[in-house]
Formats: sequence, C-alpha cells, structure tokens
Amino acid sequence: MNQLFEKLDELYEEIVDIRRYLHEYPELSFEEVETAKYIALFHEKLGHEVRTNVGGNGVLAYLKGGKPGPTIALRADFDALPIQEQTDVPYKSKNEGVMHACGHDGHTASLLGLAKALNSMQADIEGTIVFLHQHAEELPPGGANAMIEDGCLEGVDVIFGTHLQAQMPLGEIGYRSGPLQAAPDRFDIKILGKGGHGASPHDTKDSIVIGGQLINNLQQIVSRRIDPLESAVVSICSFEAKNPYNVIADTAEMVGTVRTFKEDIRNFIEEEINRIIKGTCLVSGADYEYTYTRGYPTTVNHEEETKFVAALAPSVPGVENVRETEPIMGGEDFSYYLQHKKGTFFFTGAKSPEDSEAYPHHHPKFNIDERALLIAAKVLGAAALSYTKKDQPAVNAS
Amino acid sequence: MNQLFEKLDELYEEIVDIRRYLHEYPELSFEEVETAKYIALFHEKLGHEVRTNVGGNGVLAYLKGGKPGPTIALRADFDALPIQEQTDVPYKSKNEGVMHACGHDGHTASLLGLAKALNSMQADIEGTIVFLHQHAEELPPGGANAMIEDGCLEGVDVIFGTHLQAQMPLGEIGYRSGPLQAAPDRFDIKILGKGGHGASPHDTKDSIVIGGQLINNLQQIVSRRIDPLESAVVSICSFEAKNPYNVIADTAEMVGTVRTFKEDIRNFIEEEINRIIKGTCLVSGADYEYTYTRGYPTTVNHEEETKFVAALAPSVPGVENVRETEPIMGGEDFSYYLQHKKGTFFFTGAKSPEDSEAYPHHHPKFNIDERALLIAAKVLGAAALSYTKKDQPAVNAS
Amino acid sequence: MNQLFEKLDELYEEIVDIRRYLHEYPELSFEEVETAKYIALFHEKLGHEVRTNVGGNGVLAYLKGGKPGPTIALRADFDALPIQEQTDVPYKSKNEGVMHACGHDGHTASLLGLAKALNSMQADIEGTIVFLHQHAEELPPGGANAMIEDGCLEGVDVIFGTHLQAQMPLGEIGYRSGPLQAAPDRFDIKILGKGGHGASPHDTKDSIVIGGQLINNLQQIVSRRIDPLESAVVSICSFEAKNPYNVIADTAEMVGTVRTFKEDIRNFIEEEINRIIKGTCLVSGADYEYTYTRGYPTTVNHEEETKFVAALAPSVPGVENVRETEPIMGGEDFSYYLQHKKGTFFFTGAKSPEDSEAYPHHHPKFNIDERALLIAAKVLGAAALSYTKKDQPAVNAS
Amino acid sequence: MNQLFEKLDELYEEIVDIRRYLHEYPELSFEEVETAKYIALFHEKLGHEVRTNVGGNGVLAYLKGGKPGPTIALRADFDALPIQEQTDVPYKSKNEGVMHACGHDGHTASLLGLAKALNSMQADIEGTIVFLHQHAEELPPGGANAMIEDGCLEGVDVIFGTHLQAQMPLGEIGYRSGPLQAAPDRFDIKILGKGGHGASPHDTKDSIVIGGQLINNLQQIVSRRIDPLESAVVSICSFEAKNPYNVIADTAEMVGTVRTFKEDIRNFIEEEINRIIKGTCLVSGADYEYTYTRGYPTTVNHEEETKFVAALAPSVPGVENVRETEPIMGGEDFSYYLQHKKGTFFFTGAKSPEDSEAYPHHHPKFNIDERALLIAAKVLGAAALSYTKKDQPAVNAS
Repeated sequence: MNQLFEKLDELYEEIVDIRRYLHEYPELSFEEVETAKYIALFHEKLGHEVRTNVGGNGVLAYLKGGKPGPTIALRADFDALPIQEQTDVPYKSKNEGVMHACGHDGHTASLLGLAKALNSMQADIEGTIVFLHQHAEELPPGGANAMIEDGCLEGVDVIFGTHLQAQMPLGEIGYRSGPLQAAPDRFDIKILGKGGHGASPHDTKDSIVIGGQLINNLQQIVSRRIDPLESAVVSICSFEAKNPYNVIADTAEMVGTVRTFKEDIRNFIEEEINRIIKGTCLVSGADYEYTYTRGYPTTVNHEEETKFVAALAPSVPGVENVRETEPIMGGEDFSYYLQHKKGTFFFTGAKSPEDSEAYPHHHPKFNIDERALLIAAKVLGAAALSYTKKDQPAVNAS
Repeated sequence: MNQLFEKLDELYEEIVDIRRYLHEYPELSFEEVETAKYIALFHEKLGHEVRTNVGGNGVLAYLKGGKPGPTIALRADFDALPIQEQTDVPYKSKNEGVMHACGHDGHTASLLGLAKALNSMQADIEGTIVFLHQHAEELPPGGANAMIEDGCLEGVDVIFGTHLQAQMPLGEIGYRSGPLQAAPDRFDIKILGKGGHGASPHDTKDSIVIGGQLINNLQQIVSRRIDPLESAVVSICSFEAKNPYNVIADTAEMVGTVRTFKEDIRNFIEEEINRIIKGTCLVSGADYEYTYTRGYPTTVNHEEETKFVAALAPSVPGVENVRETEPIMGGEDFSYYLQHKKGTFFFTGAKSPEDSEAYPHHHPKFNIDERALLIAAKVLGAAALSYTKKDQPAVNAS
Repeated sequence: MNQLFEKLDELYEEIVDIRRYLHEYPELSFEEVETAKYIALFHEKLGHEVRTNVGGNGVLAYLKGGKPGPTIALRADFDALPIQEQTDVPYKSKNEGVMHACGHDGHTASLLGLAKALNSMQADIEGTIVFLHQHAEELPPGGANAMIEDGCLEGVDVIFGTHLQAQMPLGEIGYRSGPLQAAPDRFDIKILGKGGHGASPHDTKDSIVIGGQLINNLQQIVSRRIDPLESAVVSICSFEAKNPYNVIADTAEMVGTVRTFKEDIRNFIEEEINRIIKGTCLVSGADYEYTYTRGYPTTVNHEEETKFVAALAPSVPGVENVRETEPIMGGEDFSYYLQHKKGTFFFTGAKSPEDSEAYPHHHPKFNIDERALLIAAKVLGAAALSYTKKDQPAVNAS
Repeated sequence: MNQLFEKLDELYEEIVDIRRYLHEYPELSFEEVETAKYIALFHEKLGHEVRTNVGGNGVLAYLKGGKPGPTIALRADFDALPIQEQTDVPYKSKNEGVMHACGHDGHTASLLGLAKALNSMQADIEGTIVFLHQHAEELPPGGANAMIEDGCLEGVDVIFGTHLQAQMPLGEIGYRSGPLQAAPDRFDIKILGKGGHGASPHDTKDSIVIGGQLINNLQQIVSRRIDPLESAVVSICSFEAKNPYNVIADTAEMVGTVRTFKEDIRNFIEEEINRIIKGTCLVSGADYEYTYTRGYPTTVNHEEETKFVAALAPSVPGVENVRETEPIMGGEDFSYYLQHKKGTFFFTGAKSPEDSEAYPHHHPKFNIDERALLIAAKVLGAAALSYTKKDQPAVNAS
C-alpha cells in the first residue's frame, strides 16, 4: 500500500495539471466529447484496454492485475455545468457559460492519476480494476443508467466512488450506510397568461404576477405541508419571462427541483405542486403546463462495503478525520450502480484550511483544495488494493 | 378635397402593399436602416426633397406647394417591436423575433400613400408639406427629440399625427384636448442574492423567492398608495433568472414600466418602488440595484388644432363617428413635437367590424383592418389642405 | 339673510356645546336612542311639530313659515362609529369603543342651531322647513331608505345636506353636479381550513396562511384588473382568527369594502373576488364562504340645485373658497333622497388653518374645526331661505 | 404486579367517570382551582398526605409504602385549553370556550385510579409514591418549574409520566431516549400602521396588507433558511385586526409558535423573524413591536429509565406494541423535571381501532379511546412497583 501512496505522491503535480486542464475546457452534460477523448487517450497511452462511447460519452478502461482476484470498479464523472465562472484562477474556464462548479474535473484527474499509479504496480494487483469514467452526472436521466445498459458493470464485483466536498474540511472522509443522497427530481411549469401593452394591465393576464404568487404559494409545501420531522426541498431555480420593458408577459417559465428521501413524500409533493399551480392560475383565469420528471433514485450505500472503507480510511496518509456523515439533499446517479452491485460512495473533504468560507457547489465561485485529489486517489486506491482482504482485521498502512 | 379623397382611393391597393411589405421586414427601434432607405427612395421617386439620417434613422421629405402658405408637418413612425409574431397572415414577419405589433407599418404606408396623392396635386397646394418619418418611437429616449435637435421642426407651423388603434372600431376618430397619453417611464431592478445548489436553500439567498415577494409587494403601489381617483400603472414586464434546474438563482433581473399623468405621482412612485425593494431585500438580507429612467413626457394636445381636426373629420369619407376619447396610459414621443409646435395627435379606429375581439397592441397576434390606413391618410390630408381655412366655418367635403 | 347669519353667530357657543355633548355620548348606528330623544326634545322646546321613530330612530321636525312656499328638507345624520377614541379633547367619548369619528355630531349640532335661528324668523319664512335627522348613515342598509319608506319625503320639494370634511380647509365649500360619492359595498369572507396543533402544520389547513395569500391576491384587482382610467377600491378592513399561540387556525374571517362609480365595474369586482378566493382556497384544499352586500348607490347631485348652492355660497360669511370638488370614494345614503327628490349634497371644509395635518375620517384621532359648524348652518340656511328665488340673479347677502 | 392490574381493572369504570367529570368542567391553565380541589379531596379520602397550592394550583399526594425503598414520582397534568368543544359526546364541556382537547383529563383520571389501586396495596409497596398533579402545562411558563421551586421534587429519586396520543393506536406504547419533544416558543407581533377610511387607502398604512405580506414572508424561514435535514416549525396561530367593514386597520396583532430541537436553530429563528418583520414593515413605512418568549426546553429522556419502561411495557396487559417513537414537535414542561431528576416520559396510544381517522390534539373535535387510561395506569404502576428491580432481568408479569 505504501508503494501506491508514494507513487501517487510523485504524480501529484501531474494530477493537478490534468485537473486544471479539464477545468479550462469544461463540457456540458451529454456534450463531453473532447473530455472523453482526453480520458481515452490517457488510458491508451498506459496500455489499458479502452471502450469508448459507452452508453453515450462514457469511457471504460481495464487494468488486468498480474494475480487473480475480483473485478473492482472505480467511478469518476466528468461533465460540467451551465454556469458562468466568476473566479479569477489562472485556469479559469475558457468555455463561455460552462464551468466545472461541482468538482468533476477533480474526480477525473484523481482517477487518472490513480490509474497511472496502479498501472505501475500491475504485476502485484489481484484481479481487475475497471476505471469507470461516467459522463452526464449533472443532468437526468444521467449517464450511469445508460452505461449500465451498455454493459459497464458486466463482471464487476464491487464499485467505489467519491465526491469532493468543497465545504468539508480537507483531511476529512465522510461515510454513511443506507440512504446517503436524496432523489433529485425536476419540475417544469409554464404559465399561460395573456400578454399585452404594459400600460393596459386590465386587458391582460399578467404571467409575471401569477408567477410571483406561485413562487410564494409553493413555499407552503415545505413550511406547512410536510411533517417537520421529515426532509424535503422544493426550489424554483429558474424563472424566465423576458420581454421588452413595456410588454406584459404572455407566458412565464419556471424550472426547479424537488429533493426527498421517501417515496410517499415524493408522490405527495408532485401532486401538491400541481394543485398549487391550478389554484394560483385560477386566481387570474390563466392556464398552465406542468411536468414533473423523476431524477435519480436515492443513493443507498451497502453496509459491508461502507464499513470497509470507513475502516481503511484512517490509515491513509492525509486523512485526519473519518466520520459518519449526515445524508445530503443532493442527488447522485451513482445510485444506479448500487442497485446492481455492492459498493459504497463516500465524501472527500476539499475545503482549504486557509479559507474561512468556501463557496457551495454549483456556485460561480466554487473551488476546491487540490490536495483533496491526492487523498481521494489514495482512499480509492487503498480500497481497490485491499478489497480482497476486507474480511481481515483493519488495514495497516505501515 | 374630393380630388384628394379620390386619388387616395385609387392608391389604396398600393398603400396596402407597402404596409404588408414593411410588415414582413420589421426593424427594431434605432436599427431601422432598411426601412429608412425604403422611405427615402419612395419620396425621391416622387421628386421630393429628402433629408436622411435625421437625428438617427429619421427621414424628412418636403413637398413645396404651388401656392404660398404655412408649413405643415405630418408625422409617421416606422420602428417595430422585439416580439415574435404569432399570426398566420401571408405577410407575416420574416425577421425572427421582430414584429410590427403596434401599427407603425400602417402609419408609414398611410403617409407614403398620402405623399403620392398630394404630390399629384402639387400646383394647388398652399404652403409646404413636411413628411416627418420618425424612427424609434417604441424605445426611449425615442427618435422624436433627436430629430427635433437635428432640425426637423425648423420652419414648421403646425404638426399632425395619428395612431391606428386596433381596439377602436373602424370608422371612428378619437380626439382630445390636453393630456392624451401618459408619461411612460422604465425601471430596472436587479436582485443580488446568493446562488448555490438547489438542494441547499439554507446556504443561499434565493433571488427568485425574493423576486416573487417583490412582484407581490409592488402591487400595493396602485392598490393602496395611489388616490383611487388618480391614474397610475406599475407593470413588471420582464423577469429573468435563467438557471439550470438545480442551481438556485444568484441574481434576478426585472424590468417594467410606470405610467402617470401627473409629475407628483410620478415622483412618488419612483421613490415608493425603491422603498419596497429595500424592504423586500432586507427580508432576505439581499442587495439590489435599481434604476428609474424617465420616458417621454405626457402628450398634451393643443386645443385649437384639436378642435380643428374634430370639426373636419366628420366630413371625411369612411369616418362614421368622431368622439372625444379618454386619455390613454401608453406613452408617445409625439409629445416632444407638441412642446415646440402647435398641433394635435388623434386616434384612428382600426378594428374590423367582422372581428368580435381584437388583440391589444404589443400582442404577438396584433393586427389591424387595413381600411383604416385610407381613413388615416384622408384625415391627415384633409387637415393639411384645409389648415389655412381652419378659422372659417366647418369644412364641407362635398 | 343677514338676520339669519347674525342669529347664528349669537348661537355659536350653544352649537359648540351641543356638538361636544353629542361627542361625549356617541351611539352606534341603529342604536341611537338617546341621541334621538335629545334631538326630539330640542325641537319640541322650540314648538316644532315632531315625529319620532321615523323608519327606526329617525326624527322629523317641521317649521311652518308665516308665508306660503315650497317644502324644503335639510338633512343631518347622527350615528357614530365603533372606534375607540384616541384624542385627548376634554369632551372625549365616554362610551367605550364608540366615537363620532366622522363629524355627524357636528352635522346635528349645526342643524339644531339652524333650527333655533330659523324658528326665530318664522313669520318671514316662505314655505315649510323639514329638519330631517337621520339615524344610521354609517351602516348599510342605513337609515335613509327606511325613513323614506316611512314617509319622510312626503310633500318635500327639495332636499339639501352637507358633510363636514376634516381634510378640506375651513372656509371652503365643495360642490359637484352628477356623481359625487361612490357606491360602498361590503364583503364577508370566511376561510374554512382545518385547525390543529401549532407544532403539526402538516395535519392542518392553515387558515391564516390562506388568508395571507388571499390578502395579497386581492390586491391585483385594482393593480391589474381595473382600467387605470377608472376608479375602484378594494379594502380588507377586518381580519379575525383569534387563537391560542399554539393552535393553528381552523377558520379566518375577513370583512371589507368595495367602492365604485360604475355598475359594470361593481359587478366585475364582485365576481372577481369570488374567483380569487376560490383559487386561493384551492391552493390549500380549503373551503370558504363569501357574501357580497351592496351598499348605498352612487350619490348623484341634481345639476340645477347644485349650481344654486354654488352660486349662493360665495356670499355666505366665513366662506372663502367655493370650488368644484372631485368625486370621493366614500359612500353616503343621501343618495336615496336624491333618487326621489331634487337636491344637492355638498362639502363643508373643517380643517383648522392652525393644523398642518388633519387625521382622516374614521381615524381614532379624527377631529374638526368647530367654526365649520357655523358655516354649514349658514349655507344650509341660506339655501332654505332663498330657494324660492333660485331662478333670480345670484343671491346678494349684503 | 398482577394484583395491581386486577385492581385497576376493577376501577376502570370509576376512572372513566372521573375523566368524564373532569371533561365536563375543564379549567384554563393557571385557573384550575376546582380541579385542584377535586384532586386533593380524592387523595384525602384515601388517607394520603396532601400538599395543595404547590407552585400555584399544583397538588402533591404521598403514599408511603409498607417497605423501605426509593421515592418515585408519577406526574399527571390537569389544565385545559381555550377551545370551544365541537364534539357531541354526552360529557361535553359545560364551560363555554374551554375544553380538555389534549387529554389531560385522562392523565389525571388515570393517575387517581392508580393512586386508589396502589393505596390498596400499601403494605407491599417498597418506598414512597409521589402523585405529582401538575397545573398549567399548556401555557408557558407552565406549572412544572414553579412546582419544582416549591419543592415538589424534594427527595424524589425518579420520575415517570406519559401522554395519551389520540393519533397513536390503542395498545401502543412509544418510548425514546434523548430528545423527545421540541422547545415550544411563542412570538407576539404587533404591526403599527395607520388606520383610516376604507375608501381612502392612500391616506393609510394598511396593517392587514402588511400582515398578509408578513405571513407569506415568514414561510421562507422553514422553506428556505433552515437546513432541510433539521426540524423546525414556525406557525402563526392568531391574527387579530377587528374593525368595522369600512375602517382600514390601524394595527394588527399576530401570535404564533416556534418549535426546534437545537439551540442554534432556535436563536437563528428568533433573529430571522425580527429581520423579516423589519423588512416587511419597511415596505409600507410601518412600525412594529416584536417579542419572542422562550417556552419549555427540549424534553430529554434519560436512557436507563427509558430502557426500563420499554422493557417492562410488553408484559403489561393491553399493550400490543412497544416501539421507539420519532421525536415530536410539541413541547412539554416535563422537560424541567428531567433536568433535575432521572426519569422518562412516554406515549400511550389512545386512538380507537374503530375510528378510521382521529382528530389531532388541540382540535375542537379531539377525543380519545378511554381504554387507554387503563393501559397508562398499568404501565405507570408497573414502573413504580418494579423500579427497585430495574437492574434485574426483564419484568415477568405472570
């Protein structure tokens, strides 16, 4: 294990370079053509067997170890978000309106570095390592399910993955058995009012006023309708009714997300939104369109694999604190892998000790402490190398 | 006068063709380059002296009558709106997202037809007719003031203009001494919240929720703060906070219009909006930007010229009803001409007797009855030809 | 006429005393038993023929002049409001929660003083003066209609009345032909939610939250649904949902008023409120009750009588400014008299020149300048004495 | 133990009679004079030593067992709520506007029955039983703290109590170590607007409109400001602005409750409400008053005593299901006892198997299945009798 850690230490600068390169050239979900090529080329240079266009832009690379053993998948996602970066780092996004604001650049760089390190240890590896590079995690239906349908899990015994967390201190690893991440659904609302001249509101059905009432009324789902002991989020994230300054809005479009951990609450909210729109539009005699699109299911970690990672993590250099984490409201299509295979998904702290405050994920000023890439690679690598020994006493890294 | 009316009747088809051509190729305010060329060329072919680029894209054409007399300006505006046409007329707009949804195509066609008709009567005309083709009426600061500064009113004794009204019955002429159209101001609001992940509202200041509260709160200006016996409009016409479905809005931008007839109410509303934004943002601890831009002044018709048009209109063929109209909340930069010269602005009904319901101005399905173009041309022409006789007993068209 | 004015000047202190006495002992609409007795006794002492209990608590007193002539009714109302007085005048209301906050005490004192003055001139009076003391003006269905049905207008040729205006300067008289005061309607809304424990909102339908949304939504009637050139008011004046601090409201009751000048707008608002309640309750799945009660009709002054008063007023001592007034949104059941008889209702300014700001009518700190009582008496008296001469040239008071 | 259970079975009718008597004569918190007398008399008849007026209306009764042993307090509260009962049971409340809508009548009847049963077993009892009858649980500051200050816990080793739960099935016992019930705080808001005539909103600052905006804005605390993984409730339970139909509200008063389990969230909400009121009032230029009154602390059960009750409950006749319960948002001043002494508070299901739906606590139609009184008495009694044996293997009821 020490050999792996030392090799990764040597590769640290390269990992950072890869991450910064990817950061400069982010690509939107389902459009990650160049990123996929980059990944494939990297593995090909290492001599790995590579499959491209897996379930879309997904890339699979295989490292067959010198010894027999299980097939272990390590997953990193590589898509970016439609956000205009507002940081002033030298490696700032060069693609207008697109940004790696969730750390997937880091996930990918970390996994590529790990691939190179493990490649150098090929002879000693027991079993096969599958580097599962997944596209389109940010945008349902996501890439995971499509990659599964295209065979990415064939022969796989167990799968591990991690997410860099910008607001969790560097050095921290968070694990949790059972539900870890919420079901992230999407809703689209279109208010069909009646436009007209800004000076004659009485001849119109003002879609912006209706929208304003709807925003207010939707708050009551969480504040009044959900048992306070349960968790749910209803966020209206987009509102569009662009018009000249003197033309009352004919229509207004709203897009948002719902997060839940339980199926009955999920169903309830889907219906409740509908009724609230219906009543609010009736107030003004307007019509509407409403669609509710279910996102990924809840991410449910397997207990045995979770304990396994929790047990080995404290011995990994750089890890200072391993703790059971609260579940989080964000969704993750890693959930699909866990419906088919054993495995666990954990969090790797990436908040600089130097920063008093870190921007949240999806924020235009989001950033991470790059040392977390090394830690993530080491924990994933340690999991891969020691999985065959998981039923033995705790890993000793010395 | 009968000669003019007959000549215009002959030109009716050409007027309609011009209007439909202009309708197919609408141009946004301050971008009306091709339309201006078209107008200039038309007058040049008639042998009129033409000035182009007056105060921007404005066009002036002069018809010197064979007899001495006053200089009478007739004004038509020719810009279009940033609206996507939704009619299915054969001459539907070919310019994506741009539409003559306010009838300025008709104004221009009507004035060009009148120019051709008057041109044929040149020898008998007393004085000079100025065809004042104005750009950019829809977008403050508008074209009128710039054309005035560029000399368009030099030597002018009186000015007339009309607006086709889609919801006033064909055959009707509306006049009013004193305030006819409101002062149309513009406001821009930017809510500066704090964006973040859609699943973590507590880490954000949700600009869309703040915007929803602001829309609601702004209603109270008209419903609670303005004397019910006074007139005022506050319309939020545009709301933009476009984001991915799972990213809470960092900022939201609102644009709208205020309409008033009195300066003290105008001032009051400007301040009141500010206070309402301030309080609403304080609720969420957000910041904001607010600008209030004064539009055209109130359009105030001169009494003598208004009575003159009201008196001659009943004798114009096609006119069935001449009535004092209510003031309207829409603004009009004809107001600037009336601050410098005598004159009047009147309304020409353009709602088909066949249509039970007409779409309002600025609506994507707006249209007019083209017979109104002929009536408008006849009333303006009659005013121009008989102005020297305005102090005589009522015009007799027979 | 000078004799009348001098006599009234002598009575001024008594008029003030009467007004202050009435102010101390205000009685609610339809409960004005003691006030009615006081009025009847006053007239009986003067030897006037008196009818009590006219259409309820109304009082009629007749002064038959020594000469033949018309029958002229002068009306004063005498009910008070359910408001807790907050002034600190020495004659502050002694009846808990009841206050003369609209000046009816002044109307009555003024008319009683005038009765005493005219009584002293009995021999010279042409015709009959009817002192029409009306109960219950503040609370629909009001006292006027009941008094009419009980015969109060029998034989009457013309009727005059005035209202003291706390925010119109002392010395001013306001007149207007045609519509003077709005139709004041009432609405009652009961939201039928579902109560429960304050800690378990999800088991309830929170009537207060529904009520909050309804208050907001009702604003849009005036701000968005009514032509800005028309006048309308929708005020929710009462909201009751009294509960322990930890019991969510089962029901909430709202009461308010609508003011309009036109029947079609009145009808529109009645229906619009219903739709807004329906939609708002649907948002929460709640039920409701809604009643709309029409108040007095619009008060429409007769042109000839209005001009008559406007013409004589400038000659009345104390009157400094006679002007055409704007219509006002408040209702007045004087409207019923004007549906049966000729007449006019005018305003008498009662704002002290010493006060920079005056509290509005129905405010707990409402008050008037008592010198206005003398002016009101003089104008009404002058109208009564000179009505037979109304078709002669303007009254000359000297 | 069986002796106790049999004795209680014999007393069942008497227990029901006591409960129904108390239900007919409910008394408000801090006003429970007659109820306290009734309780004291009951114990005096049994020969128990009784202390009355403990910390107010509290009553203590002592049963000294025939054998040495610990001092065990059993607590029942006995105050009622200001709710108008809407059931039609024969023993419906005879006190207008007061109702036992939370089951305290049952708690008291159950404890009195248990007292009588234990009294008959006096010789065999090890130690002392303290019957702690507490007044004023519903209304902070509550009776518990005052009784503690007045010595009610002196010499007590352990305390037990239960709450009948109308929506938990009969036969169920719910226990939980650690936080069981939330901190229930109270807030009072008074909006200081400016009243006036309902027809002149522009002269007022409409407190009801401000209140409506405030109700809406307060929803965002739970929907946007609190981490979705945490629990919090903000309920506005009372809104009062009673006015005549045509008088705009000068002031509006709101009262409500906040429920939290964590001190930092409690502090945050207290401040957040203040900011929201401040911003909302600024929108209309109004003033306000705000007070936040902390209620009982969180009820935190001791682990050992909780396990003890959970272990003995399954053997109690009538108990069909013993389960760990979720914490609840309602507050309970039993929390104070647990700050001083070991003990636990548990829930006793009281929903009839015959009823498909049960009304929640504090509802005007609230009711319980009276068989739950017997179960509660048996569990409390078993706890008292076997507490000395709590470290032995599970109680055997046979």
